[in-house]
Amino acid sequence: MEFKSKIKTIEWSNNVSKMVDQTLIPYEYKMVEIKSSKEMFDAISTMIVRGAPAIGIAGAHGIVLAAMEILQKTKDKEVFLTELKKHAEYLKSARPTAVNLMWAVDKQFELAKNSQSDVQGIVEELKQNAIKLENEDIEINKKIGDNGADLVKKGAAILTHCNAGALATAGYGTALGVVRSAFAKDNTIQVFADETRPRLQGARITTFELVTDGIPVTLITDGMSGYFMKKGMIDMVIVGADRIAANGDTANKIGTYNLAIAAKYHNIPFYVAAPLSTIDISIKSGTEIPIEERGSEEVTHINGKSICAAGVRVINPGFDVTPNELISGIITEKGVLYPDYTNSIKSVFS
Amino acid sequence: MEFKSKIKTIEWSNNVSKMVDQTLIPYEYKMVEIKSSKEMFDAISTMIVRGAPAIGIAGAHGIVLAAMEILQKTKDKEVFLTELKKHAEYLKSARPTAVNLMWAVDKQFELAKNSQSDVQGIVEELKQNAIKLENEDIEINKKIGDNGADLVKKGAAILTHCNAGALATAGYGTALGVVRSAFAKDNTIQVFADETRPRLQGARITTFELVTDGIPVTLITDGMSGYFMKKGMIDMVIVGADRIAANGDTANKIGTYNLAIAAKYHNIPFYVAAPLSTIDISIKSGTEIPIEERGSEEVTHINGKSICAAGVRVINPGFDVTPNELISGIITEKGVLYPDYTNSIKSVFS
Repeated sequence: MEFKSKIKTIEWSNNVSKMVDQTLIPYEYKMVEIKSSKEMFDAISTMIVRGAPAIGIAGAHGIVLAAMEILQKTKDKEVFLTELKKHAEYLKSARPTAVNLMWAVDKQFELAKNSQSDVQGIVEELKQNAIKLENEDIEINKKIGDNGADLVKKGAAILTHCNAGALATAGYGTALGVVRSAFAKDNTIQVFADETRPRLQGARITTFELVTDGIPVTLITDGMSGYFMKKGMIDMVIVGADRIAANGDTANKIGTYNLAIAAKYHNIPFYVAAPLSTIDISIKSGTEIPIEERGSEEVTHINGKSICAAGVRVINPGFDVTPNELISGIITEKGVLYPDYTNSIKSVFS
Repeated sequence: MEFKSKIKTIEWSNNVSKMVDQTLIPYEYKMVEIKSSKEMFDAISTMIVRGAPAIGIAGAHGIVLAAMEILQKTKDKEVFLTELKKHAEYLKSARPTAVNLMWAVDKQFELAKNSQSDVQGIVEELKQNAIKLENEDIEINKKIGDNGADLVKKGAAILTHCNAGALATAGYGTALGVVRSAFAKDNTIQVFADETRPRLQGARITTFELVTDGIPVTLITDGMSGYFMKKGMIDMVIVGADRIAANGDTANKIGTYNLAIAAKYHNIPFYVAAPLSTIDISIKSGTEIPIEERGSEEVTHINGKSICAAGVRVINPGFDVTPNELISGIITEKGVLYPDYTNSIKSVFS
């Protein structure tokens, strides 16, 4: 059953990438136009666009913008491809952890490299493919949503972390896609949202999405999950993913690992919802996933104001890795994968 | 070995209670004067003074202020005691979870009730006893510090939650008392401080105290502890307590329970540091500890600005209960208590 969300995160339109500026949520819902490869790099690294699937789409758009820029300078296919390769590497370096960015940029570059068209034709093909990836992402999310909804019990309270929603994807969402599909079947379910410090994506973005779509949501701080689990107020946890290793180890927003440990301690099912493009079968385990370290101001300042004494040290890992032993299932567009993940992931890719 | 801290939290001076306004830390270090029982109730409930042992001292001061007020109206001992009893109940209702408030207020009231002096004499005795409780609290903390320091390995990284420091007590601190005593012996130790949402006492107060006293401190968000534990960067956890049941179950600032679960998962020792006055032998287990629910704005707003969508639900428990099975030891002024806590607590009180 399909839930109609009011949110459209990112789309290719009139030769620009139009996206919601997520740094302004929930104060303002404003579309911005990204018009060059450099602007796209900045939009990704400053998190105007964020969420693993959404930055995949942004990367695909970035390649189109790069291709259009290069086309202004040359029609020589070899020169074009050499330049495009440089832009691709540049765009992929905007954020290191989410593999969807690498996946989408590589997919676009491969299309360009393998195309039989001239440079102008390639640019057109890249545009069409970007739109196709957008639409596919939404379709994939709806499948994830439907597959996950079958796991949600009547009246369930679902705890989620960060934002794996419509605004983390081209639309609909992964973890919140499951919530949307489940809510369409049973409007007595509800969500608990971790605020997700330091960047507060849970407080800012997840509550915005769910309030906008009329789904009941309770905001809690990241340290409260155990309290509500112990009280029997949480039935399951569903989170998104930035990269999943071949053995199921999952990198996701910092704080996910603590949440998974708390769920295990209370015997509460802990699910990851993600498209297959988030699974990086080239790496064996989570120890190989690069973890982005972000600036200290994200921790020391909130809304531009310091919250701590000057002179404090800060380490700000953007992500952590939840080991496969803490994950009850991985909800994908091809169904729910269960342990042993090395086998279930291998079989879904073969 | 004694560490000289620069911080004095609360003291009885010139017939008023002088205290650091902790809502202004770390932006301003300002003393305020509390001059009536009503002002003391407000100072405790709005957390101008906070931390279980410190609000105990504040309660003792509150009784003196109440006694001085009543003395203006009557010198009849029976009327005085009846009125003082009302003030005592009023002050105890300012915050429900920390038992030290009840302990100190009751101690003062019993002194008044059992005194052979006239009303004027009782007021003097209450003042002297308040000063005695202040000094005793600091002495007790130094003993806790020294007892706990023996548990700290050379160069250890100690993770703490909220603020169980000089500013949570009359001075020196409980969990941070252990840190101070350990640092006096070995200046290669360091602290990791959970920021402790929603009120950010870790970010605001613990970093302020430790930076002021020159002890290295790294600020992290509440969701990061597991990440650093897994990396082997945390050697032990030490937290304070607001109330400890007869079986060792410990109520402390919300988020402590999640931290204890994460420590257990990584086999990292988890200690509670608290004076015996925090142990409530009248209750068998943590399920009997009343948990204060505070206003939703503490979650939805930071520094006066909303961080979430309007229309979100909020539940804001101020504390959680860590079950005794997750606690490696309870560091008190009479030594470190170990499981089985029902026995070790019973023997220290007999």
